[in-house]
Amino acid sequence: MQPLVLTTKAAFTARIMRSTLRHVILLALSCLYSYSSYAQLEKVEPPFWWAEMEKSEIQVLFYGTNIADFSISVREEIPVTGVIKTENPNYIFVSIETQDVAARTIHFDFKKKGKLQFTREYELKERAENSAAREGYTSSDVMYLLMPDRFANGDPDNDSVEGLDDKLDRSKSGGRHGGDIKGITEHLDYLEELGVTAIWSTPLLEDNDPAYSYHTYAQSDVYTIDPRYGSNADYKNLASALHKRDMKLIMDYVTNHWGAQHWMIKDLPSYDWINQFPGYAQSNYRMETQFDPHKSDSDFKYCVDGWFVKTMPDLNQKNPLVLNYLIQNAIWWIEYADLDGLRVDTYSYNDKEGIATWTKAIMDEFPNFNIVGEVWLHNQAQIAYWQKDSKIGAIQNYNTYLPSVMDFTLHNAVEHMFAEEGGWGSGIMKAYDNFVNDFLYPNPDNLLVFLENHDTRRFNDIYDQDINTYKLGLSLIATTRGIPQLYYGSELGMRGDKSKGDGDIRRDFPGGWEADEQNAFSASERTKQQQAFFDFTKKILNWRKMSKAVHSGELTQYIPEQNVYVYFRSLGADQVMVVLNNNETDQTLDLARFAADLKTPSGTDIITSQTIALTDTLTVAAKTPMIIQLN
Amino acid sequence: MQPLVLTTKAAFTARIMRSTLRHVILLALSCLYSYSSYAQLEKVEPPFWWAEMEKSEIQVLFYGTNIADFSISVREEIPVTGVIKTENPNYIFVSIETQDVAARTIHFDFKKKGKLQFTREYELKERAENSAAREGYTSSDVMYLLMPDRFANGDPDNDSVEGLDDKLDRSKSGGRHGGDIKGITEHLDYLEELGVTAIWSTPLLEDNDPAYSYHTYAQSDVYTIDPRYGSNADYKNLASALHKRDMKLIMDYVTNHWGAQHWMIKDLPSYDWINQFPGYAQSNYRMETQFDPHKSDSDFKYCVDGWFVKTMPDLNQKNPLVLNYLIQNAIWWIEYADLDGLRVDTYSYNDKEGIATWTKAIMDEFPNFNIVGEVWLHNQAQIAYWQKDSKIGAIQNYNTYLPSVMDFTLHNAVEHMFAEEGGWGSGIMKAYDNFVNDFLYPNPDNLLVFLENHDTRRFNDIYDQDINTYKLGLSLIATTRGIPQLYYGSELGMRGDKSKGDGDIRRDFPGGWEADEQNAFSASERTKQQQAFFDFTKKILNWRKMSKAVHSGELTQYIPEQNVYVYFRSLGADQVMVVLNNNETDQTLDLARFAADLKTPSGTDIITSQTIALTDTLTVAAKTPMIIQLN
Repeated sequence: MQPLVLTTKAAFTARIMRSTLRHVILLALSCLYSYSSYAQLEKVEPPFWWAEMEKSEIQVLFYGTNIADFSISVREEIPVTGVIKTENPNYIFVSIETQDVAARTIHFDFKKKGKLQFTREYELKERAENSAAREGYTSSDVMYLLMPDRFANGDPDNDSVEGLDDKLDRSKSGGRHGGDIKGITEHLDYLEELGVTAIWSTPLLEDNDPAYSYHTYAQSDVYTIDPRYGSNADYKNLASALHKRDMKLIMDYVTNHWGAQHWMIKDLPSYDWINQFPGYAQSNYRMETQFDPHKSDSDFKYCVDGWFVKTMPDLNQKNPLVLNYLIQNAIWWIEYADLDGLRVDTYSYNDKEGIATWTKAIMDEFPNFNIVGEVWLHNQAQIAYWQKDSKIGAIQNYNTYLPSVMDFTLHNAVEHMFAEEGGWGSGIMKAYDNFVNDFLYPNPDNLLVFLENHDTRRFNDIYDQDINTYKLGLSLIATTRGIPQLYYGSELGMRGDKSKGDGDIRRDFPGGWEADEQNAFSASERTKQQQAFFDFTKKILNWRKMSKAVHSGELTQYIPEQNVYVYFRSLGADQVMVVLNNNETDQTLDLARFAADLKTPSGTDIITSQTIALTDTLTVAAKTPMIIQLN
Repeated sequence: MQPLVLTTKAAFTARIMRSTLRHVILLALSCLYSYSSYAQLEKVEPPFWWAEMEKSEIQVLFYGTNIADFSISVREEIPVTGVIKTENPNYIFVSIETQDVAARTIHFDFKKKGKLQFTREYELKERAENSAAREGYTSSDVMYLLMPDRFANGDPDNDSVEGLDDKLDRSKSGGRHGGDIKGITEHLDYLEELGVTAIWSTPLLEDNDPAYSYHTYAQSDVYTIDPRYGSNADYKNLASALHKRDMKLIMDYVTNHWGAQHWMIKDLPSYDWINQFPGYAQSNYRMETQFDPHKSDSDFKYCVDGWFVKTMPDLNQKNPLVLNYLIQNAIWWIEYADLDGLRVDTYSYNDKEGIATWTKAIMDEFPNFNIVGEVWLHNQAQIAYWQKDSKIGAIQNYNTYLPSVMDFTLHNAVEHMFAEEGGWGSGIMKAYDNFVNDFLYPNPDNLLVFLENHDTRRFNDIYDQDINTYKLGLSLIATTRGIPQLYYGSELGMRGDKSKGDGDIRRDFPGGWEADEQNAFSASERTKQQQAFFDFTKKILNWRKMSKAVHSGELTQYIPEQNVYVYFRSLGADQVMVVLNNNETDQTLDLARFAADLKTPSGTDIITSQTIALTDTLTVAAKTPMIIQLN
C-alpha cells in the first residue's frame, strides 16, 4: 500500500472514500462466505493498562477495517468518557476512566444495530510495588550509551526476520550487524566491572525501514521490540537483570517522528496525524525559531513541522489523539518494562506545547523519574530554556517539565580544549567558561556530561587515542557536576570519525560476535592499549560510585592559570580536589590560592593511590589529572 | 606627596597621625603670622546644587587641612541630616535636606569652640525647565563616538597646561595631540551633515596622569573638565549647541576607578575609599565571577576589587561615602551640562550592588534618561544579565536598573562574518544567530549596535577598506533593532589595527589640526575613496532619521540562505525590507518565501533611489545591501 503522506488533504479524503467503498464491497462479498467480524480487529493499543495509575483515563485505540462502523461499549460499570472516530474508518478511539477500578479484565463489546458482534477482553493489570515512586537515574549514576545492533550479537537466530526488510549485512557500515538484547544481557558482568550504573540503549522498537534500520529511530510499531533485537519480554528481563545489580535501564524515546513504514503512517488515521506541506518538507533544523522573537512564521513552521528526514514523517502533536497516543505509549513502556529513565530524541524539534504536555504527563505519573532531552544547541541559555522550571523558558511563559538536558556546550569544549594552549578563552579555560554559565540552568546537577555520543566524532579519534588526554577528559566528566555519560567502546580507546559516515562512529564492539578475532570483553584478549584505557575507566568509575561529594557536593572552581584547572567538590567534610594539567609539561601550583577550600595538609590521589602533601605547592605531571580525596 | 594607596591599614593610620601632627605645628606657627582659617578650605563638592531635585538630600564634601576640626552648621532653616568625619581630618561630609527649599544661597558656618571662624556660601540653583523629564538617546538616534584629543584641535593655546604633567606631543601615538571641545564644537556642521544625532565623547574630566592621559579614563578631578579640553562652560556650551541642532550629548562616565593622581587618592579620606590588597592588585578581568555559582571567593574578589590597571585605583563602592559621591557627581554633570545620556565605562567590573544603586539613583532623578553600560562579554545571556529588569539577572535577584547595554556579540560577529562563506554558523548567519537570542534581553531596542569602538580593531582595517563590506556593515547596524554607534573616521574608511597599539585605532582625524596636509572635514579635500565612504554613510544616516519603522518597528528576520540575509522592519504600514548579499556573486531570491511580510509589488531602494519590482524574484548584486522602503 502506498503511504498517504504525500497526498493533499483532498486526495487523502478521496482515497479514504475509495478505500471505504472497496471495503464495503469486500464486506458484502465476505458476508456471503460467513465473514468473521472479529477478524477486522487488527490492533488494540495500548494492549493493556494498569489499575491505580495517575493516568487513569485511557484512550484505547481499536484498529481494523471499517472498525468505526461498530458501536463499542464496556460491559462493566466503567465510564466510557469518549469515543472518537477520525476521517479514516479503520480507527476508533475509546476512552475509559479506570480510577478506583481494581485490577481486572474489562470487556469491550462491539455491536452493530444493537447486536453484539464480538467482544475484546482488555486487562487492567496490577502495578508492580512502588512503581509510581521509582527513582530515575541521578548524578550518582554513570550512564553507558550503546547501540544494540553494534554491541553484541547474543542470538544469531534473530539477525534477519521475516517481514522486516532490512536483513543482516555486516559488510555494510549502515547495515544491520545483528546485535541484540541478549548481547547486552550477556555482558552485564563486563559493564558492572567497568563501573557504569545505567544503560542508555539507542531505540529498540520495531523499525521496518528497508535501510539504516540499525539506528532504529524510524519506528514502525512503538508497542513492539524489534524482533531482530528480541521480544518485549527480553527487554523487560534486561531491566530486571540490571536492577538485580543495582543498575538502571534508560529507554531512548522518539516523540518527534515515526518511520515512513509505521503502520499508522501507511494508513493515516487523519490527514493531520502528521505535519504535511502536503507530505514531505525537510526541517530547516533552526531550533532557534522556537524562541527567536523576530522569527518569521514560515521559518518556524519549517523548523518544527518539517521532517527530520524524508523517511521520518513528523508527528503532529497539536492533534490531541497523537499526543495522547505518545503519552500512553511512553508510560506503558516505563510501567511494563520497569524502566529507570528516558532519553528523548530531537526534543527541541517537537511542538513546544505538545512536548511539554507529554513530559509533564510522564513526570506526573512517576514524580521521581528522570528524562533527559536531546537539546542539541550551542549556547547555555538556549539549552537551559528546555530544562524544567527554567527562568529562561519562563521569559516566554514556557516550561517543559523536562528534568534533564545535555551539556552540549561542554561537549563542544572538550572536542577542542585538550589540544589547545592556555589562553584567555582557550585550552582548559573552556571548561571553566562552560561552568560559569551554570546559573542559567535551574538544575545543573541534572545535566548529562559527555565526551561524545553516537552522533559525534569519537573523543579518542579527535585526540588520536592519546590515553593521557582520555584520562583528563574522563576525569573531568566523572568529577564535575552532572551525570557522566560514556559511549560504548571509549573504555577501550575506540576510534570513529563522523566525517567517514555514521557507521564509523558506530563500530562493532570487538568480541560482540562469535566470529570476531578478538574479544575485548575479556581482559585476557585486550591489547595493552585497550587494557590501559579500560583500567583507568574502571578505576575512576568504581571510585565514583562511592563519592557522595562528587554525586551531589558543591562545585567550587578556580580560574585556570597556565592551562591548569583546579576545582573542588564538597559535601560537608567529604571533599575532593581535582587538578587537570592540560600542558605538555609538569606544572607546580602555589596552593595558597586555594586556602579557602583546602584545609587539610594531605590527601589521597585516587588514581595513583598515593598520599599527596598539600602544603605550599603541588606539582602535577604533564597532561595528567589528579583526583585527590581530602582527608 | 606620595600616594597612600600602597600602604597597609596600619601604615595609613600612622601616616594620617604624622600628617595631623605636622599640621598642628604648622597651624601654631601660622597663628603667629595672622593665619587665615578660610584658606584651609580647598574644595567644596558638589560645588553647588539645585532646588527641586529628586536627590534633595545632598552630602557636601568640605576638604582642607584639618577641616574636621571645625563644627559646621547651616545658617538657614535647612536640616543638617548628617555630619561624617573620616580617618583623615582633612575631610568632612555634611548632609543637608533641601526638599521644599527654593533656589537660594545657603550659608555654611565653620566654627571652633562655638565661635564663627568663616562662612562658605553655597548655591541652590534653579533647575532648567523640564530638566527632570529630559529624554535620553533612543533607537531613533545614531551615536558618534569620538576621542576628543584625536578629533580636532580647536584651541592650540590649551594643548599644554601648567600643572598638568602630560604635555602636547603629537609624535607619540600615546601622547596628547591637542584635540579639544572647541574642536568638536567647530565641526558640528560636519556631524549634522553626516547624519549622526548624538555625540559620545570619551571622557573629558581632568586626568593628570603623566602619560596616556589623552584617553582620560584615569581622572584626577571629576568636577572639572580637563583644561586641555576646555572649561566646564565649554562643555555646557557644546551640549547647548548640539541641542539647537536637535542633537544630543553623551558623557562617558567612570565609576569603577579614578586615576592615581586624583587629589582624593593622593590624600585618601579613608583607607577603604579604594579597594586595597593592600594597595594594588590587578583585576583578573573574569567578569563571569559576578554570576558564576561555582566561583571561588578569591577569584571574585580579584575580579571586582582588583584594579583595572596600576594607575587606576579601584573605587570601593561598598563605602557609602564613595557611592554617594559618585551618584552626586553624575547627577551634577547631567543637570549642569544638560546632558542627554551617559556611557559608563567598565560597568560590569563594579561592585554589583553599588553600581545598581548608582544607576537607579540617576534614573530616579531623570526617568526618561538613557545610560549604556560597557558590559564587554561574549554571550547574550551574560550581557542581558546587566540590562534593567533582566530576567537573567533576576535569577540571582539582581537588577542593575541600567537601561542599555552594548551588543558585543554582534560586534564579534561583524568582525568575521563578512569575510566568510555561508554555512550552518558562518557568514551572515552569524548576524541572524545573534538576533535569535534577543529574547534574553528585556529591551533589545535599547542595545548599542556597532562595528567597532575605541578599544577594537577598526572595521575598515579588518576588511581592508573594502567599501562594499562597509556598506553591508553600516546597513546592518543602521537598520536592525537598537541604537547604531559609529566611531569617528569610519565614515572616511579610516584604518586602525589594535595589534599595533591603541594609538593606531585612535588616529587623528585628518584636518582636525591646522597644519594637517588634508582637511577631510571638507568635501573638496577628501580623497575619492573617503568621499565614497562619506556619501554612503550620509545617505543611510539621513534617511534613517526619518524612518520610524527602523527606529521602533518590529524586526522579522528570515533564516539566511546562500549567505543572503533578509529582514523586515515594520511599524504599521511603514515597512522596510533589508537584503544583505554577503556573496562575491549576484544572488537571485525567490520572493515567495517572504510573502507573509512582503505584500507590495514594489519598493524603493533608498541607496540607489531606484524602484524595485518585488514580484517573483529579486536579484541582489554581489556584496551589496538593499534597503527597500516598501510602498
